[in-house]
Amino acid sequence: MSKILHRDLKTTPIIIESSSGNYLYAKHPTNPDTPQQQLFDAIGGAAVISVGHNNDEVNQAVIDQLQKVAYIHSGTFTTSISEELATELLENYKSEKLAKVYFANSGSEANEAAIKLVMQYWYESGKGAKCHFISRKQSYHGNCLGGMSLSGHVARRKPYESLIDSSKFHHVSPCFEFRYKKSGQSSAEYVEGLLDELEEEILEIGPENVAAFFAETVVGATTGCVTAAKGYFKGVREICDKYDILLVLDEVMCGSGRTGTFFAWEQEGIVPDITTCGKAISSGASPLSCVVLTEKVLKGLTNGSNQFNCGHTYQSFALSCAAGKAVQKIVKRDGLLQNVTDVGEYLGQQLHDKVLSVFDIVIDVRGRGLFWAIEFGKSKTTNEPFDESDNVASKITDICMNHGVSIYPCKGTVDGFKGDHVIIAPSFTVTKQDIDLIVDAVVKSIQEFIDIVA
Amino acid sequence: MSKILHRDLKTTPIIIESSSGNYLYAKHPTNPDTPQQQLFDAIGGAAVISVGHNNDEVNQAVIDQLQKVAYIHSGTFTTSISEELATELLENYKSEKLAKVYFANSGSEANEAAIKLVMQYWYESGKGAKCHFISRKQSYHGNCLGGMSLSGHVARRKPYESLIDSSKFHHVSPCFEFRYKKSGQSSAEYVEGLLDELEEEILEIGPENVAAFFAETVVGATTGCVTAAKGYFKGVREICDKYDILLVLDEVMCGSGRTGTFFAWEQEGIVPDITTCGKAISSGASPLSCVVLTEKVLKGLTNGSNQFNCGHTYQSFALSCAAGKAVQKIVKRDGLLQNVTDVGEYLGQQLHDKVLSVFDIVIDVRGRGLFWAIEFGKSKTTNEPFDESDNVASKITDICMNHGVSIYPCKGTVDGFKGDHVIIAPSFTVTKQDIDLIVDAVVKSIQEFIDIVA
Repeated sequence: MSKILHRDLKTTPIIIESSSGNYLYAKHPTNPDTPQQQLFDAIGGAAVISVGHNNDEVNQAVIDQLQKVAYIHSGTFTTSISEELATELLENYKSEKLAKVYFANSGSEANEAAIKLVMQYWYESGKGAKCHFISRKQSYHGNCLGGMSLSGHVARRKPYESLIDSSKFHHVSPCFEFRYKKSGQSSAEYVEGLLDELEEEILEIGPENVAAFFAETVVGATTGCVTAAKGYFKGVREICDKYDILLVLDEVMCGSGRTGTFFAWEQEGIVPDITTCGKAISSGASPLSCVVLTEKVLKGLTNGSNQFNCGHTYQSFALSCAAGKAVQKIVKRDGLLQNVTDVGEYLGQQLHDKVLSVFDIVIDVRGRGLFWAIEFGKSKTTNEPFDESDNVASKITDICMNHGVSIYPCKGTVDGFKGDHVIIAPSFTVTKQDIDLIVDAVVKSIQEFIDIVA
Repeated sequence: MSKILHRDLKTTPIIIESSSGNYLYAKHPTNPDTPQQQLFDAIGGAAVISVGHNNDEVNQAVIDQLQKVAYIHSGTFTTSISEELATELLENYKSEKLAKVYFANSGSEANEAAIKLVMQYWYESGKGAKCHFISRKQSYHGNCLGGMSLSGHVARRKPYESLIDSSKFHHVSPCFEFRYKKSGQSSAEYVEGLLDELEEEILEIGPENVAAFFAETVVGATTGCVTAAKGYFKGVREICDKYDILLVLDEVMCGSGRTGTFFAWEQEGIVPDITTCGKAISSGASPLSCVVLTEKVLKGLTNGSNQFNCGHTYQSFALSCAAGKAVQKIVKRDGLLQNVTDVGEYLGQQLHDKVLSVFDIVIDVRGRGLFWAIEFGKSKTTNEPFDESDNVASKITDICMNHGVSIYPCKGTVDGFKGDHVIIAPSFTVTKQDIDLIVDAVVKSIQEFIDIVA
């Protein structure tokens, strides 16, 4: 009987004994003598693994740092490794605009720090009334109270709803063409409608009260790898500038190279005031997240208290920075962003040809780089979602596990409750052969699911 | 020019190149050719280091795990090391009551998870109205929005105040005898007054609306190592039971052995419903925090959704659990809790004899185990705090650094703004000779500060 409070208290999770590259080696918890099952990790946890599991080079960097110094108090001290990583991360985008990096452990901490940075920026600029946040429905910004308040994923928020101050946290529609663009509407018209909605929301709250607009550049687990329609983020940036509102892009899941550029927003032709990153940035070797801020935001602080009031024990943790630095080195040296783009394109093509075109219950495949989702529904004609209680995504994921491939099941695609999709987000190092293996297992699993249901 | 958003944007932190046991080895950032300065770490960051810096045995445990498997997704998978650590931690207190452990990275995450656990417990017990939290003034429960809402440290909250829903988060007086027990009042009378205040607060909110009372068993950085008066926590436990309110004790800073028992509450003769731990639990080798819950709280969940809706990427992170397990092994094998008690007593005695008795500006020394604070004021006769702008604690800390010893400066001791203290919280492995070295440096630093001011 496990003494860990796992996410699901009904089932015992599979014990993983070891990992290497794309593979996890599991043994069954109730039968330890069963030979180890080899699992191809096509999701890397939740889009965490970027240079493979148990990467020798990353490990060595962590070990080297561990044998020098791991923990120091970031109030008084710093380490060369964390200073170097900050400099390197900013070099990922050549622009005078990016000024500083704040390091934490988790995406949740990064988003909480971003909220505080926004609050402090306005407070110290003498515009303390600017304390209202606008984010999007069906978004996810982490599991601490600030992030949950921003998040528009109703099912995940439900038990905690009464702690969320909805007078300060507002939600507009996501940019989710597949589900919400009306038939006959052009992409440009759809975007225009969304921008009008955002502008109306700002005017209703009063621009003098709005602190920031928060969004995931490519939406993660909630709606499943949804890229924005062309022109959406340019429009958002213009509205934010017009009303003096900070733009914060959450790239914890979609960033750090996952979609083919270090910052996912590079492909949108805009620069946000604040970006949050995590997951792929350290490939699972040590918990690392960060907040990247522009010169404008920094000046708000340096013209004010000249402090950032958000200390965490493991802020700028040396081992996490060592892991991050090693990952960056590998990604650049081995041209992995190009691989993400190329192999990602192949993955998308394969999903279109072998999954979307083949199964009526696959109603959409979508994504960018190595970040793809398959959405399920009763049929392509109606796009009607399955019943919540059918747990379609979970069932297909379980079958896929039996075929030796780990993917990620998500619920609530349509509105936070209804809708099912699975995510595929392998290591940046995968080959086309690896993609064939993944798609083959997915195809078999969907077919098997259909056969069982039928 | 550092590219890290450090806490203080005016100064460049000292670069630490390496560490070993009680020592940090620094070099000056602007003059890298300066020989490395050796610093005795008498604070271990902020009470983080428990088995020394760079402990070979802990390092080896982390390395061994790193070479097996570091990251797995805790929704589907688990690791032997995290399962073993959970079991071991519960064995620290022999009672049927403790049921499960939830692992995260930071104390902030642990407190946020505790808030969510409380919310979910009442929501799934059909008592969703119970969503009000009572905590104490001048408390600190972390830097995410939930923890900040609980925290009563006004200065740290200030820029974010407008995001805090004060209709749900209530604050009563801390149990802080030195500052708030009236002259002529007995400890018992003081405690009775505090318990009356708590009960009145509950009745005002309505017991049917109160979810939990949150407190640090021994208050950490805000008021400085303040232990509760005798009978206080027994009284609190009774009131919580009387009104069906969960008792959550935050032991991120004071727990995991820091005061001589694994749980600081063992010395109060009570068991809380939920405990949060962090810092000393992994001695800085990898970010680890946890939430320990009782059978009662667990049943609330298993009778409900049978899930805990608070996923974090690095939840149950294998490397952190490996570090935690190695630390636990060393603490037990080497009898370090006894050392904490014995050497801690010596530290207290030395602070009384050589600091409190000697300097008029030292108005109190207090603590338990290896967790002690020295409070400063204009004079013992009045206990009047220094002016905020004098930064007395910071100045004494800086002087102490020049004497080769790192301690921890805190402001706001009295009311969140006024008051100065420093904290001493060395590794559980320190000897009496180490204490002599620390106290000697502290004595010299206070004298030097007085000489400069005079």
